[in-house]
Amino acid sequence: MAARGRRTGGGDTRAGIVEAARGLFAAQGFDGTSVRAVAREAGVDPALVHHYFDGKVGLFAEVIGVPAGIDDEIAAAVAGPPESVGERVVRTFLRVWDAPEGRARFQAMVGAVAAHEGAADALRDFVSGTVLTRLAAGAAGGEAFSELAVASAGAQLVGMGMLRYVVRLPTMVEADPEEVVALLAPNIQRLLAP
Amino acid sequence: MAARGRRTGGGDTRAGIVEAARGLFAAQGFDGTSVRAVAREAGVDPALVHHYFDGKVGLFAEVIGVPAGIDDEIAAAVAGPPESVGERVVRTFLRVWDAPEGRARFQAMVGAVAAHEGAADALRDFVSGTVLTRLAAGAAGGEAFSELAVASAGAQLVGMGMLRYVVRLPTMVEADPEEVVALLAPNIQRLLAP
Repeated sequence: MAARGRRTGGGDTRAGIVEAARGLFAAQGFDGTSVRAVAREAGVDPALVHHYFDGKVGLFAEVIGVPAGIDDEIAAAVAGPPESVGERVVRTFLRVWDAPEGRARFQAMVGAVAAHEGAADALRDFVSGTVLTRLAAGAAGGEAFSELAVASAGAQLVGMGMLRYVVRLPTMVEADPEEVVALLAPNIQRLLAP
Repeated sequence: MAARGRRTGGGDTRAGIVEAARGLFAAQGFDGTSVRAVAREAGVDPALVHHYFDGKVGLFAEVIGVPAGIDDEIAAAVAGPPESVGERVVRTFLRVWDAPEGRARFQAMVGAVAAHEGAADALRDFVSGTVLTRLAAGAAGGEAFSELAVASAGAQLVGMGMLRYVVRLPTMVEADPEEVVALLAPNIQRLLAP
């Protein structure tokens, strides 16, 4: 969100691209929206969209409030020794969302998804096409994860985010990140690398 | 939601009580709202509030869209053999929310909580004061649960609800309830009765 408000050189162009993308993602979903169509809608060259954003995923992440580079973060968390994948995934989630700006983004994202069919569609396509595929393929120990197991692991993290950032349940808000890791990592571990 | 729309004998009175409660919960939170204050605001006798609703908890559940009797459902799930508490809790969650009306309520609740500070406050007080206390006290095997462990178990369920009812991730939507139980129950079990 902060990045959208910042107007530097070319800020109007960048903001125009984001607005065009927001409209197209809402109307046509993630799969139905191309960088070319966003560029056309914004009246700019597609190369300019690529200049400002890391392709369609980066553009969607900007629109929905997901921090840039989230899929690389996930890939990095999944890589490494399978026996500690659960711990790395929980730490990555907390690093991305636990900062004050991250909390606000999480809440905004949940609000958008609950309120607008288009935002839910777009997030669903994004998660299915990017996060889930990446996780289901990039297995701990070389084996592919089951998509439902990956989704269940994601559910543990999404729910923690709901209680920590949106509902703000005191016990979850006040918990030290290390306590959260200690409680949740074994659940994620069990689902991703049993 | 359906119950609010239904106007039977005394329906206007009932609806008036719900509206008064909605305003007070939003303005003053769950703890700061009394049945007496709701009755005063609605211009009815407190006994009438108790006639229509199961006390303040029942009234709040109605306002926020939580099915009536949720705390009894939770108590029933926690009672019984500790070694299968995880399975009972997941089954209860699915029974309450998996029906079409339940799904819509879940989405409405998430939307309200993400959009309105007052709704988040009220839900937080409700969960802290009722669900969490009940669970943390009514232990499997007689031992008290840690509140953070209970909240983490709740997070697993809330996140599953987010992906199944709000984001509607295909793999989670299409999963048979029994598959969901098989994947999640061991996580809940580990947190509630390790």
